[in-house]
Amino acid sequence: MSGRFRSECRRIIFQSTRWDEKAFDIVLILAILFSVGIVLWESLPSLSADVRQKLYIIEWLITALFTAEYALRLYVSERPARYSRSFFGIIDLLALLPSYIDLLLPGAHYLMLLRVLRVLRIFRVLKLAKYIGEANLLMRAMRASARKIAVFIFAVLNLVLILGSLMYLIEGSEHGFTSIPKSVYWAVVTLTTVGYGDISPQTPMGQFFASIIMIIGYGIIAVPTAIVTAEMTHPRPRSPNTDCICPACGWENHDNDATFCKVCGDKLPNSQDHT
Amino acid sequence: MSGRFRSECRRIIFQSTRWDEKAFDIVLILAILFSVGIVLWESLPSLSADVRQKLYIIEWLITALFTAEYALRLYVSERPARYSRSFFGIIDLLALLPSYIDLLLPGAHYLMLLRVLRVLRIFRVLKLAKYIGEANLLMRAMRASARKIAVFIFAVLNLVLILGSLMYLIEGSEHGFTSIPKSVYWAVVTLTTVGYGDISPQTPMGQFFASIIMIIGYGIIAVPTAIVTAEMTHPRPRSPNTDCICPACGWENHDNDATFCKVCGDKLPNSQDHT
Amino acid sequence: MSGRFRSECRRIIFQSTRWDEKAFDIVLILAILFSVGIVLWESLPSLSADVRQKLYIIEWLITALFTAEYALRLYVSERPARYSRSFFGIIDLLALLPSYIDLLLPGAHYLMLLRVLRVLRIFRVLKLAKYIGEANLLMRAMRASARKIAVFIFAVLNLVLILGSLMYLIEGSEHGFTSIPKSVYWAVVTLTTVGYGDISPQTPMGQFFASIIMIIGYGIIAVPTAIVTAEMTHPRPRSPNTDCICPACGWENHDNDATFCKVCGDKLPNSQDHT
Amino acid sequence: MSGRFRSECRRIIFQSTRWDEKAFDIVLILAILFSVGIVLWESLPSLSADVRQKLYIIEWLITALFTAEYALRLYVSERPARYSRSFFGIIDLLALLPSYIDLLLPGAHYLMLLRVLRVLRIFRVLKLAKYIGEANLLMRAMRASARKIAVFIFAVLNLVLILGSLMYLIEGSEHGFTSIPKSVYWAVVTLTTVGYGDISPQTPMGQFFASIIMIIGYGIIAVPTAIVTAEMTHPRPRSPNTDCICPACGWENHDNDATFCKVCGDKLPNSQDHT
Repeated sequence: MSGRFRSECRRIIFQSTRWDEKAFDIVLILAILFSVGIVLWESLPSLSADVRQKLYIIEWLITALFTAEYALRLYVSERPARYSRSFFGIIDLLALLPSYIDLLLPGAHYLMLLRVLRVLRIFRVLKLAKYIGEANLLMRAMRASARKIAVFIFAVLNLVLILGSLMYLIEGSEHGFTSIPKSVYWAVVTLTTVGYGDISPQTPMGQFFASIIMIIGYGIIAVPTAIVTAEMTHPRPRSPNTDCICPACGWENHDNDATFCKVCGDKLPNSQDHT
Repeated sequence: MSGRFRSECRRIIFQSTRWDEKAFDIVLILAILFSVGIVLWESLPSLSADVRQKLYIIEWLITALFTAEYALRLYVSERPARYSRSFFGIIDLLALLPSYIDLLLPGAHYLMLLRVLRVLRIFRVLKLAKYIGEANLLMRAMRASARKIAVFIFAVLNLVLILGSLMYLIEGSEHGFTSIPKSVYWAVVTLTTVGYGDISPQTPMGQFFASIIMIIGYGIIAVPTAIVTAEMTHPRPRSPNTDCICPACGWENHDNDATFCKVCGDKLPNSQDHT
Repeated sequence: MSGRFRSECRRIIFQSTRWDEKAFDIVLILAILFSVGIVLWESLPSLSADVRQKLYIIEWLITALFTAEYALRLYVSERPARYSRSFFGIIDLLALLPSYIDLLLPGAHYLMLLRVLRVLRIFRVLKLAKYIGEANLLMRAMRASARKIAVFIFAVLNLVLILGSLMYLIEGSEHGFTSIPKSVYWAVVTLTTVGYGDISPQTPMGQFFASIIMIIGYGIIAVPTAIVTAEMTHPRPRSPNTDCICPACGWENHDNDATFCKVCGDKLPNSQDHT
Repeated sequence: MSGRFRSECRRIIFQSTRWDEKAFDIVLILAILFSVGIVLWESLPSLSADVRQKLYIIEWLITALFTAEYALRLYVSERPARYSRSFFGIIDLLALLPSYIDLLLPGAHYLMLLRVLRVLRIFRVLKLAKYIGEANLLMRAMRASARKIAVFIFAVLNLVLILGSLMYLIEGSEHGFTSIPKSVYWAVVTLTTVGYGDISPQTPMGQFFASIIMIIGYGIIAVPTAIVTAEMTHPRPRSPNTDCICPACGWENHDNDATFCKVCGDKLPNSQDHT
């Protein structure tokens, strides 16, 4: 009977198709959002000590519930080790730790906001596959352009360091550019077009120089966009087929998943046989 | 005769081809712009009570006119129910309501600015079809990428919540980061490169961390652009072949120019015979 | 002899290939840049009355020179009327007018900065054709997407008007949102991610609402980029060939300038015969 | 034996494959990062004279080391002249100069941050070729669109000059627009969506005008992105066909996949025979 109970629990907790499975996930998501709301609320400075006390208790109740849920997951899972190392397993653990760490290190409990990552489960309740597919597509495009972006970020870091130190020489500490790290911070704020205005050039020379930086930044912002767009519109082929020529009609633009030539219907030579 | 009058009215009000039909639309658009101007003017704090009084009267006169127009539209329309549920019918009603709601709920009358939506009629006076076509194209590209954008916005919301709470821990309330919601607001302002500067990091540690956020934001702004661009340059095909299933192997993802199934080499049924 | 002089002048002034023709253009460009520099310098508030006096005289000398040059152009040109209505003719006149208007309307002489447009001549000294080609390509892409951009700007204007008036209701005049026009100005500043920070939301409700606006703005900024990019990468074909099918091999993707099928070499049916 | 030593040194210094060659590069990179850190640290205003003294000494030690390394490179290199004119040779020299110039011109030593460029060597330790390939691709896309970007920047400069001077006339010096150069600086800050907020329009007229500038800037930011994206997704072809001229009609713009001239239908010479 305990086996029956375990398998029922496993179904309800880990699946998301039938009504009771969906209901469990939705209740879980609401609880997570509620606990996130509590953390946000608790950080308001205007709270009375009384309310703060109550929120503190509620928070620990939720933490206890989530701890119980985590234990249950480990218990009912067929391969607990595998679950605990899976994507959701790690997030579930990360969502619990801050509460306990807070006992040793006050302040850490704000990291409970990591709980919000658990809401990712919502994609399971909705039509999972499609959204995961889209997310994968985004991730793949970003991973494919990772090296280009690394080169780009390296170039930006160098640029920012050099522009920042030049600006430190031009403006000097009397206009807010009190040190090179601060000037570099200013250069980042300017180049990314954020522009807080907490530090801004005061001398004509500095303003002239800053104008040049901004127009450079204008051109630079185009680069990551172009990289990701190029990757999304024309993902690089990865199959041997790209080099393959149809022996019958000579057509060369075969898709990665093609076994037969789509122009003349002949079998392609070096394709991995799908059929 | 009343029937004759009704059909004439219907023609002038609902059509937009002949000169009198166009004239009616143009007068209407001018009246709408005038009424929007009045609302903007009325909100200026420097107005004397006298002027405010007069504007108030003018506003009610316009509201009366628009109400009469709406009643007329309902009266002369062949299917009043259908008009009242149509796109322009709903906007026409929305443009009237705020004036009346304002009698119960002062302040609501600023929502009269919704009237500006009625100016959409201008696209009827101009060559309607082409503009609507362009708008549809934009809408279609956005709808097609809605799921990707949902995933993206979810990722941004998580990022902003986590970055905001980290920043709250780093900077603390003495530097303007008085609560987590406020820190999250700061993270949104920074990540979207708006950068008001009403709250900005003061400690070196916070400035270092903020610089990293900004450079991340740089990369992130590329994503929605890439999504919409990819959708606009390569709209997903809806040609006959996309619905066609290979009779031999059941493969569904045929290209638009495929005559033969690229998986099994069989001829496709409803392709336009190239050979 | 006067005819000889006129034709020599015409060659030097209007051509830009031989060394003396290029020299004339370069001297002219330097004079223009010099005169622009004078206007910029003159606007500095820290100038002594003495310097200002001298700059004033220099400015009139330059204006006299440019007026003489304009008269000379009219005189030596073969068709003065055509020159005066040409692109450069209008710019040359616009560059002169502000000095004279300033006699009647003080302040207008700052519009002399329009002179900087005359520097466009620099593209003639460099390899003209290529740059003009690039500029034309940019202009064509922008003109082709003009209708889409009109729809987009109309949508942004409506959005900004409605968001601005909502924000006026939420924040109220005690937090800087003193009137609807000012709130609309704030909405523009926010949606375009400029973010001066001269007005910024103070209430939690306003900050929450502003965060939503910013994330919307994030998505919106993608739209014009996608429009122009789509236009530049895939300019719309304008020829009948796009609908034409090769009678011999059935290939459909013919280019706009193709008379013969590029796959099988057969003549295309409804092409305008190039040969 | 001295020859043996030289060739061993040359291998360790200039190669980056075996463990000792990699170790040398990594130690060098760490030393560079350390020296950059020292310069950043030294610029902090809160340092005591004692610490500053020590940092100064450390800095000169590092400079001595780097000078020795540069001399060694020149000594062991097979062609010293060629090394000293190579990309890394110039950077190595640039990284040394500021320390010595500082003796004559105090302040110049902050330019030591140019040393950070030496970290580019890191790409040699990592899989060099791939990253260089990506960087080249980025560079090529930017070089290919250089002329379009030159036209674009010229247009932006003109726009900024004219908008700035108009704004100077509208707002006047009492609202911070004290001179035309400063107004132009404001126009750059606004058009690039940086928006410091150190100068911002105060009059309703100025705010209205600024709103228009911002919406223009919105459209303008799309242009460089579109240019670079178009270049990266569709790099101009350099395949054999681009250089091929039709023997029959002399047409030159053949596509990459063309076997027959699309203008006259003749077979092209150096095409890979598809049929």
